[in-house]
Amino acid sequence: MNFTQRLRTIQRAKNSLLCVGLDTDSTKIPQSLHIHGEPLLEFNRRIIEATQDLVCAYKINLAFYENMGAHGWSTLQKTLGYIPEGIVTIGDAKRGDIGNTAEMYARSLLIAHRFGATTVNPFMGFDSVEPFIRNPEQGAFVLAVTSNPGARDFQYLKSGSRPLYEHIIRRVKSWNTKKNCGLVVGATRPGELRRIRRIVPDMPILIPGVGVQGGSLKSAVRYGCNSRGFLAIVNASRSVIYASTGEDFADAARESALALREEINRYRAAYFGRPH
Amino acid sequence: MNFTQRLRTIQRAKNSLLCVGLDTDSTKIPQSLHIHGEPLLEFNRRIIEATQDLVCAYKINLAFYENMGAHGWSTLQKTLGYIPEGIVTIGDAKRGDIGNTAEMYARSLLIAHRFGATTVNPFMGFDSVEPFIRNPEQGAFVLAVTSNPGARDFQYLKSGSRPLYEHIIRRVKSWNTKKNCGLVVGATRPGELRRIRRIVPDMPILIPGVGVQGGSLKSAVRYGCNSRGFLAIVNASRSVIYASTGEDFADAARESALALREEINRYRAAYFGRPH
Repeated sequence: MNFTQRLRTIQRAKNSLLCVGLDTDSTKIPQSLHIHGEPLLEFNRRIIEATQDLVCAYKINLAFYENMGAHGWSTLQKTLGYIPEGIVTIGDAKRGDIGNTAEMYARSLLIAHRFGATTVNPFMGFDSVEPFIRNPEQGAFVLAVTSNPGARDFQYLKSGSRPLYEHIIRRVKSWNTKKNCGLVVGATRPGELRRIRRIVPDMPILIPGVGVQGGSLKSAVRYGCNSRGFLAIVNASRSVIYASTGEDFADAARESALALREEINRYRAAYFGRPH
Repeated sequence: MNFTQRLRTIQRAKNSLLCVGLDTDSTKIPQSLHIHGEPLLEFNRRIIEATQDLVCAYKINLAFYENMGAHGWSTLQKTLGYIPEGIVTIGDAKRGDIGNTAEMYARSLLIAHRFGATTVNPFMGFDSVEPFIRNPEQGAFVLAVTSNPGARDFQYLKSGSRPLYEHIIRRVKSWNTKKNCGLVVGATRPGELRRIRRIVPDMPILIPGVGVQGGSLKSAVRYGCNSRGFLAIVNASRSVIYASTGEDFADAARESALALREEINRYRAAYFGRPH
């Protein structure tokens, strides 16, 4: 089963487009967890336990683990072990390098860590992306329009009649022979999301930027989904995992994830009818 | 002392523009090293010992360490411990992410690992680069034109009268208030290198792609140096560290590095006169 099919199957089975981002920061987790030998891992374990029935994916931001050196990689590996089958795991690493180096990064993320998908930076072109899309079962979400202010610096530069991001998505479309390519489009860019979904009607789109970054959930669903109300992956990180800073963090994360999933599903029903 | 001044001082003191890339791959190091508890570390230790008087910098390609998980990060940390003072250490990680994540990556590379400089991907714009250029003593080499075939996919797209890479370098020039920004320009792109050096007469340029990738050393020196014959950093990785696959790998690496440094210095003398 190719990645796009797998994602659709999981989204249908879980009735969820929600992805929770495990951007776990040791300075932000409850103080009480520091009695554990591995406080970040315990935090992740409890977040996963509390939210696993509500999500189609978990996104793991590698910066937050890399930042802890050797120990971080062990936490990452063990965290992946807590995520049940039937949920997409996204290694949010945004790597991009020349062929032989991209190959090493891909080997680490897709073979050693067995992520179901990764995020990839397109700046260095095809040979920097190819190792990430070699296996049809594993996906790669290529950055198109990002949610941050700096997105304006280069992604919107017009070449011919089209902005850079549109050149990128058209190129990614041509690379998608195995149906395992996706795009990253920030929820803070609803107009662009709408435009992009028209160009790639059936490509998975990872949409970060709702929650703390302020993107509209309604637009993310309305413009991010395919015509059947699938293939948008709406990511929330900080607004879910830090919903409470107290002992009740896992319950609070669950409530926050549940509310997001239901809001997403209300918009899906409104714009696409019953999922089909 | 800002990064640009520091680099110039080191290049003068060492009479070298050569950077050796420690892209150390466990499948390529001599079999005999595998009796050591940490074969990659032993390989790096001997390469550094054999070449440290010949280089201005070592570039460590993070993919090759990340690929080994927790153990790789420990090897990376210990390798940095073998590099003497007075040599620039470049963490070649090409990271690029939204502000709070870029901050985590920068903290890992610049504070935890204390790299003297990093490579950074500009695609996500200023807030993705800013954490890497906050400390004037530590540099960031921003990707402009890369040495790989995929560089053609997006870096040359024209916006207005200028290719994307030129928009990037002009933007980086405006970010360079602390004199710690640099650029990455592949040695396989001599025409672009020449053009870029005219726009940024005194910015460090990291030039990978001589050796295995086939870029011209002569052009790298001629077009990459500032008017005084400094601030180009010519990187060679595989052609130096794998100069021999036998027991004599360290001696062979030294010979290869020595030959490169001398050839570079001959071109410097020819094009810029005695270093001044």
